[in-house]
Amino acid sequence: MKEEIFVVGIDLGGSHVTAACFERQGRIHNKVFHDINPLEPPSEILNNGIVPAVEKVIKESGLDSSKIVGIGMGLPGTLDSNLGICLFSPNLKWRNVPVKKPLEKALNLPVFILNDVRSATLGEKYFGAGRGFEHFVCMAIGTGIGGGIVANGKLVLGGCEGAGEIGHITIMPDGPLCNCGNYGCMEALASGPNIARRAREALLKGEESIMKHMVKNLEEISAETVNLAAEKNDSLALRIWEETGRFLGLGVSMIITALNPQRIIVGGRVAQAGELIFKPMREEIKKRVKMIAGDYTGIVPAHFKEDAGVAGAAALVLEKLGLIS
Amino acid sequence: MKEEIFVVGIDLGGSHVTAACFERQGRIHNKVFHDINPLEPPSEILNNGIVPAVEKVIKESGLDSSKIVGIGMGLPGTLDSNLGICLFSPNLKWRNVPVKKPLEKALNLPVFILNDVRSATLGEKYFGAGRGFEHFVCMAIGTGIGGGIVANGKLVLGGCEGAGEIGHITIMPDGPLCNCGNYGCMEALASGPNIARRAREALLKGEESIMKHMVKNLEEISAETVNLAAEKNDSLALRIWEETGRFLGLGVSMIITALNPQRIIVGGRVAQAGELIFKPMREEIKKRVKMIAGDYTGIVPAHFKEDAGVAGAAALVLEKLGLIS
Repeated sequence: MKEEIFVVGIDLGGSHVTAACFERQGRIHNKVFHDINPLEPPSEILNNGIVPAVEKVIKESGLDSSKIVGIGMGLPGTLDSNLGICLFSPNLKWRNVPVKKPLEKALNLPVFILNDVRSATLGEKYFGAGRGFEHFVCMAIGTGIGGGIVANGKLVLGGCEGAGEIGHITIMPDGPLCNCGNYGCMEALASGPNIARRAREALLKGEESIMKHMVKNLEEISAETVNLAAEKNDSLALRIWEETGRFLGLGVSMIITALNPQRIIVGGRVAQAGELIFKPMREEIKKRVKMIAGDYTGIVPAHFKEDAGVAGAAALVLEKLGLIS
Repeated sequence: MKEEIFVVGIDLGGSHVTAACFERQGRIHNKVFHDINPLEPPSEILNNGIVPAVEKVIKESGLDSSKIVGIGMGLPGTLDSNLGICLFSPNLKWRNVPVKKPLEKALNLPVFILNDVRSATLGEKYFGAGRGFEHFVCMAIGTGIGGGIVANGKLVLGGCEGAGEIGHITIMPDGPLCNCGNYGCMEALASGPNIARRAREALLKGEESIMKHMVKNLEEISAETVNLAAEKNDSLALRIWEETGRFLGLGVSMIITALNPQRIIVGGRVAQAGELIFKPMREEIKKRVKMIAGDYTGIVPAHFKEDAGVAGAAALVLEKLGLIS
C-alpha cells in the first residue's frame, strides 16, 4: 500500500486566496478561503494571505502535519519557476517578486510555483480531461486567454517558460489592439472583456438587442450579460457567441495544424457558454484544418471548473516530488 | 572506444534517389545518386530505385557490410511510421504504400521512415543548428512549407504524426486558396511557387520590373527569378521578398508565441535568399511577439542544404536504434 500523503494547492485570486488539501489521487480533502487585500505589497499578501490560508487548511484538515509533503501555487503571469520568482504579473501588478523562498521559510515545506494556466494543464493531465492523452492543449478563456501544451506526455514550457501563450496568437493581422501590444490576438477578440466590448460596439452602432435593457449603462455589459441574452434567444447575443466561437476556432486550428494534439481542453468562465461556443468553434476548425481529419481533434470542456487552480497546483507538487505519473 | 558503425540515409527526390553512408557522428562517408522514373508504380521505385541505390552506396563505401546497422528514409507526405506505410504523398502520388517491410526484406536491414521535414529536423537536432537546444522548430521552405517541432528535447509527432505542418497555419483568414483546401495558409503566400505567383500577378497588373525581360513568358517566373532580380536591385522583386519575409514572420510569430522555442531553423531552397527574407521576418516577429522578448528567439539558417534529406534520414536511424543522444 502506498503511504498516505497529502499536498496543498493554492489559488491566488483577486480578492481571496483558496487553499485545498489534496489526496495523492487528486481528491480534495478540505478547502479554505482567506481574504486578501490585492492593494497590499506582495510580501504582505504572501505573509498575511497565503501563509495563514495554508496554515488554516492544514489545521482544519485534521491530518498529522507530517503527512503534508509540499505546497503548490499557480500564478497569473510570467515566472522563473526554478528560481521561484514571479517576473511579471499584470493582474497582480507584481514585478520580480520572490515567492518560493519566503513561503518555504514561513511554512517549512517545499513550495513549487508555475504559471496558473500551465499548472491547471497539469491538473487536467493527471486528474481531468487530459488523462490518458500524450498530446493535448488546454486553454482557459476568462479575462484573458491562457494555455498549456502537453506533447509526448510532458508539459512544454519552452525556452523561458513562455510556451502556451496561445491567447496571443494573431488571428486577425489588422485586428484590434491587444493588452500585450500586438494587434488581432485571439485574446483581443474572444476573451470575456472583448466579447463584452464587441457587444457594446454593436449596440453603439444601433443594433437591436435586449442587452440594452439588461444594464443601466453599456459599460456594465459583460460576457455574462451576452450569455444571459443568448439564453433568451437574443439574435445579437447569439451572433456575438457564434463569432466568438469562430475566432476561437481560427486560433485553435493553428494550434491543431502545428501540434496535432489529440484533444483541446477548454476551460475558464467563458467556456461555460458551452455549445454556443463549441459548435461554431468545431465548424471553423473543420473548415481550416486540412492536413489531418478536421474532426480528429476532440474539443472538450475542462474537467475542473472553480477548482482548476488548486487542483493544478496540487498536481504540480505531486509531479515535482515524483509522486505521480 | 565506441564500435565503428555506419547507417544509410536515403533522400527520395522527383528524378533521382540519393543514398549516403553516414558515420555515427554525422559525417558523410560516401554518397551516390540513382535515377528513378517517378511515373513508375511505388513498388518499382522501391525495387528499381531505392534498393539498388542502397546496394550501390554500401558497395562503393568499401566498408564491411556488417558495419552498416540500419537504413532511414524521409518521405514527403503523411505516414504511419510505426507500420512503415506512406499514407499519402501528393508529390509522389502515393497512397497507402508499404515502404518499411519491402525494403527490410530486400535489404535485410532495419528500415525506418518518417516525414521528410520531420527527419530533417532530427538531422539539425543531432548534427546541425539544433544541437544543444531543447526547444526549437525547423521549417523548410520550398515547393511547400513543412516543419518539425522539438520540445523538451524530443521531436513532437502529435496524435497521428501530423505535428509540424506549420506551412498550413492560417496567416490571412481570407487569403488565397491553398493546395490543402484552406485559405490563407502561410504556404499559400510564401512557398516558392506562391512567391512566383505573387510576382506574376504584380507584373500582370502592369508593375515595372526587369523580371519581364528575364523570361519568355510570365509562366516561367520562379522564386529563383525573383531572387536574381532582387540581386540586381529590382524594386518589385525586393518588395516581393520583403512581403514574403513578413508573411513568414507572421506565421512564425504564432509558433513562437505558442511554443517559445529557443531557435527557428529555416531551410529549404527559398531560404537561400538569406537576409532578403530573414530581415523582414525578424522585424515582423518583433512586432508580433510581445509575451516574451521579441528577439529572444534566434532565427537562423539550417546547417544542412542539399544533404538535409540524407542527414535527417541517418539521424532517424541512429535515434531509433538508440545509437545517439
